[in-house]
Formats: sequence, structure tokens, C-alpha cells
Amino acid sequence: MVNVLSSGNSILNQYISELRDAEIQKDSLRFRYNLERLGGIFAYEISRVLAYETREVVTPLGIANVPVLIEYPVLATILRAGLPFHQGFLNFYDKSENAFISAFRRHHKDGTFSINIEYASVTEIENKVVILCDTMLASGSSMVLAYKELVSHGKPKHTHIVAAVANVEGVEYVKKHISKNDITIWLGAVDDEMTAQSYIVPGLGDAGDLAYGKKH
Amino acid sequence: MVNVLSSGNSILNQYISELRDAEIQKDSLRFRYNLERLGGIFAYEISRVLAYETREVVTPLGIANVPVLIEYPVLATILRAGLPFHQGFLNFYDKSENAFISAFRRHHKDGTFSINIEYASVTEIENKVVILCDTMLASGSSMVLAYKELVSHGKPKHTHIVAAVANVEGVEYVKKHISKNDITIWLGAVDDEMTAQSYIVPGLGDAGDLAYGKKH
Amino acid sequence: MVNVLSSGNSILNQYISELRDAEIQKDSLRFRYNLERLGGIFAYEISRVLAYETREVVTPLGIANVPVLIEYPVLATILRAGLPFHQGFLNFYDKSENAFISAFRRHHKDGTFSINIEYASVTEIENKVVILCDTMLASGSSMVLAYKELVSHGKPKHTHIVAAVANVEGVEYVKKHISKNDITIWLGAVDDEMTAQSYIVPGLGDAGDLAYGKKH
Amino acid sequence: MVNVLSSGNSILNQYISELRDAEIQKDSLRFRYNLERLGGIFAYEISRVLAYETREVVTPLGIANVPVLIEYPVLATILRAGLPFHQGFLNFYDKSENAFISAFRRHHKDGTFSINIEYASVTEIENKVVILCDTMLASGSSMVLAYKELVSHGKPKHTHIVAAVANVEGVEYVKKHISKNDITIWLGAVDDEMTAQSYIVPGLGDAGDLAYGKKH
Repeated sequence: MVNVLSSGNSILNQYISELRDAEIQKDSLRFRYNLERLGGIFAYEISRVLAYETREVVTPLGIANVPVLIEYPVLATILRAGLPFHQGFLNFYDKSENAFISAFRRHHKDGTFSINIEYASVTEIENKVVILCDTMLASGSSMVLAYKELVSHGKPKHTHIVAAVANVEGVEYVKKHISKNDITIWLGAVDDEMTAQSYIVPGLGDAGDLAYGKKH
Repeated sequence: MVNVLSSGNSILNQYISELRDAEIQKDSLRFRYNLERLGGIFAYEISRVLAYETREVVTPLGIANVPVLIEYPVLATILRAGLPFHQGFLNFYDKSENAFISAFRRHHKDGTFSINIEYASVTEIENKVVILCDTMLASGSSMVLAYKELVSHGKPKHTHIVAAVANVEGVEYVKKHISKNDITIWLGAVDDEMTAQSYIVPGLGDAGDLAYGKKH
Repeated sequence: MVNVLSSGNSILNQYISELRDAEIQKDSLRFRYNLERLGGIFAYEISRVLAYETREVVTPLGIANVPVLIEYPVLATILRAGLPFHQGFLNFYDKSENAFISAFRRHHKDGTFSINIEYASVTEIENKVVILCDTMLASGSSMVLAYKELVSHGKPKHTHIVAAVANVEGVEYVKKHISKNDITIWLGAVDDEMTAQSYIVPGLGDAGDLAYGKKH
Repeated sequence: MVNVLSSGNSILNQYISELRDAEIQKDSLRFRYNLERLGGIFAYEISRVLAYETREVVTPLGIANVPVLIEYPVLATILRAGLPFHQGFLNFYDKSENAFISAFRRHHKDGTFSINIEYASVTEIENKVVILCDTMLASGSSMVLAYKELVSHGKPKHTHIVAAVANVEGVEYVKKHISKNDITIWLGAVDDEMTAQSYIVPGLGDAGDLAYGKKH
């Protein structure tokens, strides 16, 4: 199942427009903050499908029966571009455990590139709900690699795969390589094109560079 | 129209449960942060009914047609308990103009109290969408007074009245004193009872004291 | 005693330069954030002169003897311009109690204005350390009025009076009207001139308007 | 040169005491927030020794000559425990470029462990001021490895090495392996002991686990 949040009206579209805007991007504080706010919105939307139980809470004036989360999802992200987006999820799910995975894009001299997992710091995920977020879903290979790395540490109950800006091809790639029963896909905007170097068009450029500076 | 966000499952209920909990309340940092997160959720939900227009945005790699907010709502709140809740709205609507109103509860020796407007710092609201938020909607008289004060500065296009925790009587009071065509009401939890001093039961106690310390 | 933080080199000067800059001011998110960061810096500097005691803390691996604050200062501010500045103090002193005071500048038809206290929500301050902060210290009359209002609720042990941008005349006014034994003054920049309407020159304009929108 | 910030009184000691406290640590939101606040304090202290130039700034009411940072330092950190600490630096140096390095502690069956660099995303650092921060400085080998990785990408003008909690042995290790002309060391607390597994005693436990959950 694929949920595209930009299909309805909301302030999410404002943030995506600012993320895309080559002028506004120059303010990296705002760029990161927009990703953080988007992460919060996705966190909230996904929270609607999580499991709750009613608990009795003692207030200063009485007793209330209120629904609380049964368990917090594990929050996984892909370095480095996913970090500000992940922060938005962590703001909303402050008790969550986390996983960080690096999927490095190695550019070859012939113009092609390959993606490798270099680093994975993964908490216990067996039978847990996992949210795997990355800012961009371009070719889809980083996301699929990160997912495979994740599930090598345990079998999640379910995984929510989230990207702020995605490409149709990347979405197809994910759907092709991961069983649809295991995941739900959540996207901000979905763009149609991609460059030969797997940058989304019109997209927003290189999210990692914009958030943290050009790589050496 | 009244929207009660706690009627569906979401992390909003988790935050409300923490706000209510007499033990968790002792951490005023978390108390304020929960109100801020709630403000963000309401800001997002209300953003679905605001007006957008499509604008052409130049990205580093192309041109995107993206919906953006036509105008930011004015964010009004009631002092002091509304401040952390208002901050959550301002986080989401960073370009908004703001209004601050104080509605002071004066306790009389006979145990009754009256509510007066003492301070109002109001930006231009004529023909604008306004969000008027307060943490609690108990008797409803502060909210109605603040609304009357607001509209004495101009006639808003529409006003969204928001409270994290409300009482059924207070909601009825607002509906009785403000034309239903002028407002939409958004609530977190709605409780049934109220003390003689107009504290919501089970509620969460005095939101201002919990966020900022007991008044002298 | 007057401490002027901008007299030494630090990132504080960068924030003050951004606050002053008529172009950068247009981003009210950054304007408020710069005030918040300044508040944090002042909070830290003032924390050096507060009282600490050594407490034994049990870590997961042993016992540490560490200094902790004996008591948190009360954080008072003046509405509405002081709010983002105050937030910076509250970020650092999360357990503090707070006071909010409104000192309204009433402009008369003849071009003069008077300042009145309209609203004061003050926590217990008797024998406590108080930090009274406002973004601007122009003529000094708001600050002195707010201080008088504060001490009408109790006698603080000591009060730290803080302004991000001040005027020499305003500083003299404060020193003239409050006993030097009762207060310590902490300033960011200190400017030499003031308009007839008591705006600091070069200053930064109207801090309240820049943070929250022009008043009606 | 080694600067130990906890040697003087300040709110920094309060945060370190909360980070150490096995009870308070259970709130991972507060744990991360304390690291973020510490990062802000170190960012500010280090900003005193950076280079500034005076620039003319046009305010709404005049012209001000104000000192601004000539260049922002590059902010480098070690994954994953350094992330919340790094966030505090980024809050203060919002225009900085960043570097992320993972130094993985591989535990061997015989109880020993080795540290390897797995991932390095490094921005241009040639002739720049670099701040390399990690939450803990235990044996010192992660910090030295990360530094060596960094300088393999270029020669910084100067590097500030920062740790919230350090061990005397680790500090000696850093001083032994990096030329004292190239670095300045900034520390929160400095503890005397270390376990065979290189955990600082009394320390605070495993900072990565406390911030982000136990590794699988």
C-alpha cells in the first residue's frame, strides 16, 4: 500500500515547496527544519495505524481512561541525508529505539555508481513495528539495501517505508523487491523523472549536501 | 462544527495521557513539550482546510509545480497557559502573525471568580483566518471573552477555536455565544465534569501552573 | 554591575548582527531563533554566578560527586517581545518557575507615549534569584516598571536584568531607579542613540513586530 | 591545551549530573536534550576563540558596525553516540558544514575489542577550523581514529576536540597521538577510572544505548 500525503491539501506541501526551492535551500537551517517538520507529519500520520490500549491515568483531579501506545516503533534511517527527517520522527516518538544505516553511493569513473552498506547500528527489531525513513527515494536501491540490512537483524512485525520526495521508478523498485505484506509505503511528493546519476527530477537536488554541506 | 481529534487513534492520545498523569506532570519540560507537540498536530489538521495555490518552483534540477499556502493564519492565544500550545502552532506556521490575550481569572473571597481581559496584543485580523488556541476549555468564558476581544480588532474570515482538553459545558458555552458560521472548534479530549472552581474533571489540573509554576 | 557580553568575541555577536539586519529580519523564524539562542547564552553566563552544591549521583557504573544547582532562578519576562528571548532561558533552566508581565506602550496623539503594567502573572519570588529579561532596553521605563511590579510580589534575593540590545540612556535609567545592590545588569549590544519614540538607534527596529507581526 | 568546563560553576554541571544519573537517564528525551544543551555550551565557549570581522549592517533605523564570524567551523562527530551532542553544536553554528564518522567497537569473544572506521562522510576541511565532538572520550582510540580519518581528507587549520565526559587515560592517549599544535581539547567532566571494556567509571554508561536504544 502506498500513501502519498501530498495528494491532499496540507502544510506538508508548503514544506516540500520550500525544500525544492533553489533559493530557499540556501538557508540550511530552514532546509533541515522543513525536513524535521515533515518527519513530524509522517510520524503523526503513521501513528494512526499503530496499536493502542486504554490505561487508567491519575490526574490531579480524578481518574481518566486514556488510550496510549502499546509499543513505540523502532525508527530507522539512512545516513546522512535521513538524519533531519529522522529527527522529526524522534521528536514525536521520543521513547523509540533507533537504527542508523549508511548506504554509500560510490561513483565510478565511468559515470555509474554502486550502493553499499557500510555501517549499521541496529537495535532489537524482532516482531516490532519499524519506520524506515529516508529523505529521498530515487532509484530505490539504498532503501531496499537498508531494508535488507535491517531484516538481517530480526523480522519486524511490519515496516513503514517513508520518503519525503520519491520517484515513480524508485517506488516500483521497492515494491518489486520487498513483499507488499511486509511494508506500507508513505511518500511526500512523487516525481516522474530521474537523471542518469539517479537524482530525482525536478526533485530538490542532493538532500545530504543541502543539509550538511558538500562531500569532499 | 466540532472536531474531536482524540476520537480516532493517534499519538495525540499518548501526549494527552502524559499531560494528565500527575506523576509525569512533575517534569515541566515534558509537560510543555507535550503541549507543543499537540499544537503541531492541531496545526497540521487545520492546515488541511486552508487555501492553497499552485506555484512554479525552480529546483536545482528542474521546475516543479507545487501547492503553497495562499496566506498564513493569524495565531492567537490566551496567556499564560496557552503559550506552549501556541508555540506548537508557530513551529508549523512559522510565517504567521500572532495575537496574545490575557484573560485573568480573579478569585473572589466568596469562592466565585470572574474573568477579565487585561492585555491584548493583536495583529491585523480583518478578513484573515485566525486560529485561537488555549490549552484548556473549561467554562468557556475565557475563550469567548478572548474571541470577542479579537473580533473587536477586525472581522476574521473564519476562526478555528482549539483546546487540548475541554469540558462539554465549555463547548456548549462557546457554541451558544459565537455564531456557528464564524468558527470551527477543534478539541483534543472532551471531559464530562467540572469543579465549582471551573477546573475540568478529570482534566489535568492547572495547565498554567504546571507549565510555568504556581502563581503568587 | 553591568556585563556587556558583546565586548568580547563570541557567536553572540553573529546573532545580534542577524537580528539587526533589515534583510535577515524578514525571516521571522530566524529572528525568533536568534533571540532564543541569545537567551541560552545569557542563561549560561548567568549560571556561572548561581549557587551549587555537590550531590552524590548513582551512575550505571559507580557513584559520582557532581555539582548541581541549589535552586533554579525564576524567569520573568515582558510581553510580547520578550517571549522568544525568555524561551532561550527556559530551554536552559527547564525546572524554573516563570513570571510574565505586560508593559504596554500607549501612544498618544501628541506623539508621546506612556507605559503601563496591564498584566502580571507572577510566581512566588520571595528570597529567590530572579532573571528579568526583555529583548530591548530602550528608555528603561518598561524594565523599571516590570521590576517594580515584580518586587510588589515579594523581595527577591537578587535580580539579573537582561537585554539583548540596550541604549546607554536606558541603562542609566535602570541604574538610577533600582538600587545597585539588588541587581546585576547583563547586556548584548549597547547603542548610543534613541529616537523621540524611544526606539534604539541603530538598534533593530520593533522586536515585537519582527517576532510576532505588526500590532493592529 | 585542555579546557575542562566543569572546573568552574555553571549549569553545564547540572546537565552532566542528569546525564550520569541512572534514574534520570531512563527518560531518553531528556538524555538527548541534555547532550544537545551541552553541545550548545561548548559551541559557545569555542566561539570565543574563533575569528571575527566587523561588518556594516543596515538596520531599520540606521547602520551598525557589528562583528560577525569570518567562517563557520566544520562540525564533525562520531556515530551514533555523538549525534545529539553534535545537534547542539549545529543549533549554534547553523551555517556550518558537517562530517559524520562511524567508529565501530567490535567486541571479540575473548572480551577485548577493536575499533574500526566504517563510514565517513566528510565535507571539505582543508585549512578550515574543525570541531570534532563525541559524547564520551574513554580509551581515546575512537577519537584518534576519527581524527586520522578526518585529516586524510585535508589539513584543517585547527581542530577542537570535544567530549562531554572523558577519562584521564583517554585524554593522555589523544595528547600522545595528535600533535598539541594541531588541536585544542575541550571537556565536560573528567573521570579517573575505566573498566576493562573501556567504559568510563563512574561515567554514565553507554551513551549510544541511552540515547538511541540498545544495539542488537
